[in-house]
Amino acid sequence: MSSQYNFGVIGLGVMGQNLALNIERNGFSVVGFDLDKAMQAKATAKFSGKKMEVAAELQDFLAKLESPRRILVMVPAGEPVDAVIHDLKPHLDKGDLLIDGGNSYFPDTERRFEELHKAGILFIGTGVSGGEEGALWGPSIMPGGDPEAWPLVKPILQTIAAKTPDNEPCCDWVGKGGAGHFVKMVHNGIEYGDMQMISEAYFLMEQLLGLSPEEMADVFEEWNKGELHSYLIEITADILRKKDDETGKPMIHMILDTVGQKGTGKWTSQVALDLGVPAQTIAKAVFARVASSFKEERMAASAVLEGPKYSMYGNKEEVIEKIRQALFVSKLCSYAQGFQLMKRANEIHKWDLNFANIAQLWRAGCIIRAQFLTDIKDAYVENPNLTNLLLTPYFRDAIHKYQTGWRSVVAMGVESGLPIPGFSSALSYYDSYRAALLPTRLVQAQRDYFGAHTFERVDKPRGQFFHVEWK
Amino acid sequence: MSSQYNFGVIGLGVMGQNLALNIERNGFSVVGFDLDKAMQAKATAKFSGKKMEVAAELQDFLAKLESPRRILVMVPAGEPVDAVIHDLKPHLDKGDLLIDGGNSYFPDTERRFEELHKAGILFIGTGVSGGEEGALWGPSIMPGGDPEAWPLVKPILQTIAAKTPDNEPCCDWVGKGGAGHFVKMVHNGIEYGDMQMISEAYFLMEQLLGLSPEEMADVFEEWNKGELHSYLIEITADILRKKDDETGKPMIHMILDTVGQKGTGKWTSQVALDLGVPAQTIAKAVFARVASSFKEERMAASAVLEGPKYSMYGNKEEVIEKIRQALFVSKLCSYAQGFQLMKRANEIHKWDLNFANIAQLWRAGCIIRAQFLTDIKDAYVENPNLTNLLLTPYFRDAIHKYQTGWRSVVAMGVESGLPIPGFSSALSYYDSYRAALLPTRLVQAQRDYFGAHTFERVDKPRGQFFHVEWK
Repeated sequence: MSSQYNFGVIGLGVMGQNLALNIERNGFSVVGFDLDKAMQAKATAKFSGKKMEVAAELQDFLAKLESPRRILVMVPAGEPVDAVIHDLKPHLDKGDLLIDGGNSYFPDTERRFEELHKAGILFIGTGVSGGEEGALWGPSIMPGGDPEAWPLVKPILQTIAAKTPDNEPCCDWVGKGGAGHFVKMVHNGIEYGDMQMISEAYFLMEQLLGLSPEEMADVFEEWNKGELHSYLIEITADILRKKDDETGKPMIHMILDTVGQKGTGKWTSQVALDLGVPAQTIAKAVFARVASSFKEERMAASAVLEGPKYSMYGNKEEVIEKIRQALFVSKLCSYAQGFQLMKRANEIHKWDLNFANIAQLWRAGCIIRAQFLTDIKDAYVENPNLTNLLLTPYFRDAIHKYQTGWRSVVAMGVESGLPIPGFSSALSYYDSYRAALLPTRLVQAQRDYFGAHTFERVDKPRGQFFHVEWK
Repeated sequence: MSSQYNFGVIGLGVMGQNLALNIERNGFSVVGFDLDKAMQAKATAKFSGKKMEVAAELQDFLAKLESPRRILVMVPAGEPVDAVIHDLKPHLDKGDLLIDGGNSYFPDTERRFEELHKAGILFIGTGVSGGEEGALWGPSIMPGGDPEAWPLVKPILQTIAAKTPDNEPCCDWVGKGGAGHFVKMVHNGIEYGDMQMISEAYFLMEQLLGLSPEEMADVFEEWNKGELHSYLIEITADILRKKDDETGKPMIHMILDTVGQKGTGKWTSQVALDLGVPAQTIAKAVFARVASSFKEERMAASAVLEGPKYSMYGNKEEVIEKIRQALFVSKLCSYAQGFQLMKRANEIHKWDLNFANIAQLWRAGCIIRAQFLTDIKDAYVENPNLTNLLLTPYFRDAIHKYQTGWRSVVAMGVESGLPIPGFSSALSYYDSYRAALLPTRLVQAQRDYFGAHTFERVDKPRGQFFHVEWK
């Protein structure tokens, strides 16, 4: 076995292991390293019989890599990434390449890029989506950082990446600095929105229509054949079909409703607030997870705070179809928000993002892979400077066709006391975006009343500011 | 005129000037300073004939203050505050006191407190609310920082502060470090929510019911006599009554609907996301301002994106009353969010906040002053460790009484295509908080499916985590 490996992987958790195995399967030799001896042992067992090895010591790991070294770092975002860089940096040569494949916060990636650039070390921060299975068989990969570094790994990364049905790799250069991690952050924010809205669809069918998990699995399976076709719809059918081994009951009924989060949805929401983009459906999905965490308080409150009786408009089949329509167009609005956020960031950071490419990267491999990303891609191919996805014929026509059902579903949730923040915030995004006039003119008047914050006038050009004495 | 003044004010904009005049009117002599000569001149004119002076140079300003010096800094939040501290610090004596009265971000206040503490200089970061008029005649004041500093300014600040109807000052010690600015930040976040929701009430009456500004002024005036009694309702009536001098038309119709923001609402939302508190109504109010900023896009979109016909349930008087109910209970939910956020921050920062006192500080002087803050105060007097305001009889009973109207109003907005994100997010907060079971259990199942993130089980104690093979 050669002692000069093509590629190094630091961090041999399941994601790191699976990416390493994927790289090796595609014809590149891989040496791995992990500070944790137990992880080393596990990986050694998994790698046996392959053009792979696990190094016991960092020095040994570095010695076994061909030059320039290409090292993928798969450790948790935050301090661990800095720790790895700190340990590695003194031993790297100019022209070596570090790739951070975790969910790093993009300003950290910008900082690390600058720091390593000064030392002559190449740096890529890349989003990797697809979960553990995706890592092994073909993830979506969103690399950004130093453009000089891209040719060094392009063949490897595009080979291990997922392929679209027309065999295009779901991996392409995103942009310099933190662009790759920014796009992955938005991907995850959209994922938060998708998951929340699918769970609202499930909950309405269960609570309002009384469908069993098996029946709902059938519904999601059916939905997956149409315009909602996507990975998350597909796995929802599997989940609802699954029985608990221990009790024989539907697995979904055994799961506590508190949801964890690891930060990317929160960052997306906070960045949207900073950049002034109304990505409210993503924020609402994060708040829904937050609300779920107060389990004991909710249990206590449910005994004290009353709600209404359930209201259902239409028969069961009609309501199921309305829920499908609501889910689909809410999803469109959530994606419009995500792309609006990337557009704004692109204006500020000058990343030169290619939105058709980004939609292409998400076509396969990643958690939000879905058929309609092809329509998004096509829209950006046709008009790379598109103002907002809502204005494309595909989005516009779908919403026009389905909005009656959508509004009816939101109203049902409201009248029934079932919280559907994803659907309702998507609707409020749509209704705000298409509003020539918003209630906010009163807000601006109030600000001028108590704080002399001034206002613009409808009968004067923009940029002129007025104040009146209100009393 | 004495050359030894009781109090110094740096930053002689309208807020600084008015606070200085307020202090002087209450028996304390004041010297002011501003780097801007034009500001100096304006203030000199305003201060003439009073126990006040404007110093031309910083050295002179410092020399004219009695020891220990007490200096109120009224400059814009952010870099200007650091610049003032940088200029002053070398010239201050141990035991001198700086008070930052701007809307500083509370982590900045914590940092400045630590820095000045090392140099033996006392520091207070205080919220001041009430706008320009409040500053002059009695604002709400929320001081935090160094507890040793409080006795030095307590008599002055409590004298100049607003008084409640039972003559209690709306100024009391909030807590150490950044506690004062944190509480002011939440005050402003609540203010964002109030303003958004009042504007939604106005918009529904105008668009759906076709009321004229004069008619709506009458409605708000009427509402101000009841449980909605508050400053913001009062000024809304004034605003809707006001005619434009230039055109003779209602002033409100001349105002462009794009709203500015200065950061405190955004910070409140971002901090809520960081601390895991579902303060979604405040966040939605910020997003509503954000959405308003896309004026040109909205104008263009309004010609392309269709909405429904307006739907109204009930006659005009009934709908007006439902809107009043919706506004009142949405407001209750928004305040519950604000207090939930302060409770969480208090647990983390160990500020020892007194929530009854905080409600008391907001009873008069500030922008969100309202009658029902007395009810909030009473609730915290009765139970200082209250879990959530929604659980108090006052909040609970009001919501139980009005929720039918509230839900009907939200449904009308949804079915009519009128965006009411404040009302609807308040409702989703309520329905989530009282939900023993949330849709999110599907989200957690999805996370386990693709990422092995594990879940807790409904039939096992909390803290045990399970993973299943879903396929």
